Amino acid sequence: MTDSSSSTLRFGVLGTGRIGAMHADLLQHQVDGASVVGVFDVFSEAATATAERLGCTAYESAEALLADVDAVAICTSTDTHVDLMVAAAAAGKAIFCEKPISLELDEVDRGLAAVSAAGVPLQIGFNRRFDAGHAAVRQAVIEGSVGELRQVRITSRDPEPPPISYVKVSGGIFNDMTIHDFDMARFVTGSEVVEVFARGSVMVDPAIGDAGDFDTITAVLTHENGAITTIDNCRQAAYGYDQRVEAFGSLGIAQSDNQLDHYAVVRTGDGGATASVPHFFLQRYIPSYIQQWVDFVTAVTTGEPTPVSGADGRAPLVIGKAALRSAQEGRVVTVAEIEAGASS
Amino acid sequence: MTDSSSSTLRFGVLGTGRIGAMHADLLQHQVDGASVVGVFDVFSEAATATAERLGCTAYESAEALLADVDAVAICTSTDTHVDLMVAAAAAGKAIFCEKPISLELDEVDRGLAAVSAAGVPLQIGFNRRFDAGHAAVRQAVIEGSVGELRQVRITSRDPEPPPISYVKVSGGIFNDMTIHDFDMARFVTGSEVVEVFARGSVMVDPAIGDAGDFDTITAVLTHENGAITTIDNCRQAAYGYDQRVEAFGSLGIAQSDNQLDHYAVVRTGDGGATASVPHFFLQRYIPSYIQQWVDFVTAVTTGEPTPVSGADGRAPLVIGKAALRSAQEGRVVTVAEIEAGASS
Amino acid sequence: MTDSSSSTLRFGVLGTGRIGAMHADLLQHQVDGASVVGVFDVFSEAATATAERLGCTAYESAEALLADVDAVAICTSTDTHVDLMVAAAAAGKAIFCEKPISLELDEVDRGLAAVSAAGVPLQIGFNRRFDAGHAAVRQAVIEGSVGELRQVRITSRDPEPPPISYVKVSGGIFNDMTIHDFDMARFVTGSEVVEVFARGSVMVDPAIGDAGDFDTITAVLTHENGAITTIDNCRQAAYGYDQRVEAFGSLGIAQSDNQLDHYAVVRTGDGGATASVPHFFLQRYIPSYIQQWVDFVTAVTTGEPTPVSGADGRAPLVIGKAALRSAQEGRVVTVAEIEAGASS
Amino acid sequence: MTDSSSSTLRFGVLGTGRIGAMHADLLQHQVDGASVVGVFDVFSEAATATAERLGCTAYESAEALLADVDAVAICTSTDTHVDLMVAAAAAGKAIFCEKPISLELDEVDRGLAAVSAAGVPLQIGFNRRFDAGHAAVRQAVIEGSVGELRQVRITSRDPEPPPISYVKVSGGIFNDMTIHDFDMARFVTGSEVVEVFARGSVMVDPAIGDAGDFDTITAVLTHENGAITTIDNCRQAAYGYDQRVEAFGSLGIAQSDNQLDHYAVVRTGDGGATASVPHFFLQRYIPSYIQQWVDFVTAVTTGEPTPVSGADGRAPLVIGKAALRSAQEGRVVTVAEIEAGASS
Repeated sequence: MTDSSSSTLRFGVLGTGRIGAMHADLLQHQVDGASVVGVFDVFSEAATATAERLGCTAYESAEALLADVDAVAICTSTDTHVDLMVAAAAAGKAIFCEKPISLELDEVDRGLAAVSAAGVPLQIGFNRRFDAGHAAVRQAVIEGSVGELRQVRITSRDPEPPPISYVKVSGGIFNDMTIHDFDMARFVTGSEVVEVFARGSVMVDPAIGDAGDFDTITAVLTHENGAITTIDNCRQAAYGYDQRVEAFGSLGIAQSDNQLDHYAVVRTGDGGATASVPHFFLQRYIPSYIQQWVDFVTAVTTGEPTPVSGADGRAPLVIGKAALRSAQEGRVVTVAEIEAGASS
Repeated sequence: MTDSSSSTLRFGVLGTGRIGAMHADLLQHQVDGASVVGVFDVFSEAATATAERLGCTAYESAEALLADVDAVAICTSTDTHVDLMVAAAAAGKAIFCEKPISLELDEVDRGLAAVSAAGVPLQIGFNRRFDAGHAAVRQAVIEGSVGELRQVRITSRDPEPPPISYVKVSGGIFNDMTIHDFDMARFVTGSEVVEVFARGSVMVDPAIGDAGDFDTITAVLTHENGAITTIDNCRQAAYGYDQRVEAFGSLGIAQSDNQLDHYAVVRTGDGGATASVPHFFLQRYIPSYIQQWVDFVTAVTTGEPTPVSGADGRAPLVIGKAALRSAQEGRVVTVAEIEAGASS
Repeated sequence: MTDSSSSTLRFGVLGTGRIGAMHADLLQHQVDGASVVGVFDVFSEAATATAERLGCTAYESAEALLADVDAVAICTSTDTHVDLMVAAAAAGKAIFCEKPISLELDEVDRGLAAVSAAGVPLQIGFNRRFDAGHAAVRQAVIEGSVGELRQVRITSRDPEPPPISYVKVSGGIFNDMTIHDFDMARFVTGSEVVEVFARGSVMVDPAIGDAGDFDTITAVLTHENGAITTIDNCRQAAYGYDQRVEAFGSLGIAQSDNQLDHYAVVRTGDGGATASVPHFFLQRYIPSYIQQWVDFVTAVTTGEPTPVSGADGRAPLVIGKAALRSAQEGRVVTVAEIEAGASS
Repeated sequence: MTDSSSSTLRFGVLGTGRIGAMHADLLQHQVDGASVVGVFDVFSEAATATAERLGCTAYESAEALLADVDAVAICTSTDTHVDLMVAAAAAGKAIFCEKPISLELDEVDRGLAAVSAAGVPLQIGFNRRFDAGHAAVRQAVIEGSVGELRQVRITSRDPEPPPISYVKVSGGIFNDMTIHDFDMARFVTGSEVVEVFARGSVMVDPAIGDAGDFDTITAVLTHENGAITTIDNCRQAAYGYDQRVEAFGSLGIAQSDNQLDHYAVVRTGDGGATASVPHFFLQRYIPSYIQQWVDFVTAVTTGEPTPVSGADGRAPLVIGKAALRSAQEGRVVTVAEIEAGASS
């Protein structure tokens, strides 16, 4: 940030698809101390549209944009993350990278090595850590209110499955969806995962199975500290976007529940009727995206570590590989087994 | 209690209608340190049925029963309360009396004078004070958690109106139904009521209006300490027996909400469906009846004051008279005005 | 809107204080079909700051701004509302006006007459009607789920009192704060108010009393259809911004409760601990402000009536005058009495 | 029931320990159409105390008691269940048997064969099926409200571990505690369990580990219909007796949550404070015990099948053996493997 003459962190946003465009909007309008200098996308129309909306420049190349900013938000397709990370690191820029860093562990390691060598800040986009409810669960663990952790429970279900075209390139449910929950398990417990048992099935749409993926999974994680996390995922939940976390320990339990569309209830002789769990993920998680950016800007500005490190981006990928193998082979798989395979 | 050779408080139950029979059952089976020696009712079949169920004696007269017990529960019709109270006081027995003591203030005063002269314990049947939720509101006030009280809110609605035959002898909604809420207002605030404004209407059943009563009332009480209590009553609530109290003060608010039949919720694309507020008053208040007896037995046994005194039985009747006059005349009525009229 | 060559409604925002600036931001960024052409404020620095933030023009006069737009948002100080309304009506612009229109009924009537003569759309800023929870209560009434209304309950408490300087010019608690609840009572019931009984006291800050105002009020409204609405207001609630509405009728009850900061709960041996009711009013009502604008834009664009008419802006002022007189004189005051006085 | 001249089902209660005495009380006082003729316990003082309290006879032997009744409640220690079941079947009596029937599958089969041969009614004591909340979940599944089941979640935690002396004879956590949840999984899904994966650990008290048991377990059950049930158990939960069930399917989710001690909440500047989850299991489950008896009496009286069959008593034992083996060997274990071992 050496060249910035102002106190505002000047951002370039790489990738202006749905998530990239959202990040650009949030940075421009909702995050104090941040502004968007320019955007880049391989689809230049998308970049231009976002640039016009935000009143910034649509760049012709990522390199050109990199040269003009203090920090980059890498929101492109997963297979381009590492190259952009390496370029940004070489340019000495602070880096925010959407999850997953890459589907290949050696690629992840190449990216992290470049960041480490350059000594630039890096934060991975696990926004759910910044959800006020989930963060309150983590806080209760840190403060000791729930004592020594015993069992963690994460429920994460999407309202609707993505298009099959997306499923095919998503890297599979463990890399695309459960990855958030693997991160949440590590975040809430503060303890690494050592073993995984997972069950996967196709209950939502046979086409997902035809694409080689599961749409419904249950995973059991054993943490280094002995705590057990169980995760339920499904690509479809008719009642809304179900996002819950609970942490049970020797002194109590902390539970982050869903919010509802509103808090009116109608009671008649037939019982009570309440609002729905919101179906749109942004209705739940917009505040977490904003908080994520606030914390990134603060970390970069103060020189403190970012709240979600490169290692935090890597670990869930390893767990995901263990989970996939477990679901495929019907047995417990250790994280060490995956690491051994990766290094061989 | 002088003649009792055991540590058990030996009760006689006067009146074995619905409430009297319930009290007899609770005393016999659910209250440690209490037993029912006998029951009396002017309908001897009712007394006999209860006596057989409990394994005790059906007495031929109230006087005969009084002679054999340590304590009496007066659960007869309202117009007989005071005579029985006077008789029990004269016999030196501990007295529990259902509310209202009487509909006539001079009768109430005659009964209380007799109790006072005899120096026997007296407790009035305002069971809602013993409801765990309502008691938690009072406790929050006592402990200072909500600070200096400003506004109290009481909602009390029956699931169904009583028969018109009962309405005609009930003494009117203020004496029969709101009396509990007048008591609750004094209990929660710990402050006397000085002024009343009330609105009454007939919205449930015209026959109630024909009987000279209201079925729906709203009352605003001004307390000595400046706090304002508002009360909503209705003889019919399709969604169940609605019993709520909230106390708002300078430091916070304490709210006692309804419980539900159970705590399962079904969520679909149409929102959530919950269980009903119970329709039967015993489903909400049985534990409060038991606690009322436990506290009575404790008070009598230890010689401590009972938790609901004779004065606590009298005050809501005066407030009720002010409320009725207010509703009839469309103006604020002071409690002092009623007292002045009573003594004139 | 005749001169607009685009489908976007072009707004001028008059007054860029806290509320005006917020409206300008929402119109510019969050409301499809709306854009802000320019802003005006007697404090030109305030106008300039907002204009720069939004990328629009700071005008030198309201008149100049009026000439360039399709619609105006009148967010200036209350005493200037009517003159601006008259000018905007004369210019044929669609008008959004913050509440209260004026503290003087004859001024209100002058403004409404001008709007009526010009035939331009007018919407008053009662945003709470657009809150999803409160709107669900109204919807339940409209759909008949709660049957014939009997009792309505509105609780509205601010987290902190405004500065005394503001209290002095606010028009008093009934015009400044309860006005929203008077509107809500009319909105939820769909029935006019005919009588008012109110109690006012000073329990938060003696300085508010010294300024001639109350800080804590309870009001009982009798509606034309017989329903009774009770309102509790307080200028200070330590536990947050308390905004609740409930409507009880012959078939059920609809209750709009507060939302919380988040939905995590921590349970230990001492019970459960939940999040707070938000303290900042925007945390609760931003979505209602946005919805208000969406509905205004739709009404203006389609030519349908706006959802909050000029009459809806006038009625709460009359109720407020009745409430003030009731609180001052300790008696029931009819709306007719106020109207008679106004027309005399 | 041939010899009974009355319409009341005449019960003998075998075993008057904590659970047996409770059943005797409920049958005598709270179940219409049932009465307790006599009780038996190898500790004759216990039997005498219960008999005196209930006003019935303490028998000298189970056989003598069997001769005098229509139905028996077998509440003795687990190792005596099957012999008593066989004797009661031979005597042609309706049988209620507490869970588990036996810890040995061949013993279970011997008992069930005798019952089958005699053609007498048999009901197993899985009371939680009769909990109103859990039953509502099952009902939602039956009615199709949640659609085709995908994932079921059961949380069951005791407030405090039992004495070590009890742990040693309990048959282990899977037979003593999780057995209820295995039954709940079958009840809610209506589908048999085919595979089990379980993790067990000692996190509450090392002495439980020394006794060869786990105190904290997580189990994943695969049902015949493809649904996955996950179960979390712990012998100690500081926040109360945690009993929750949820069933997620293609159309929605049904969730049975804990009730609280009461429904008062105190809100201050620090957030909200609620009551505790009850610590005493009877506070949650007494109504389910009563309902269990009502349904037993109805089934026996009408000749309809009982709601919890002998097969329902056997299946959870097999699942428990699979779970134990899974936890011990760190692998998935099929129910078929256990059955094959049992029959070999």
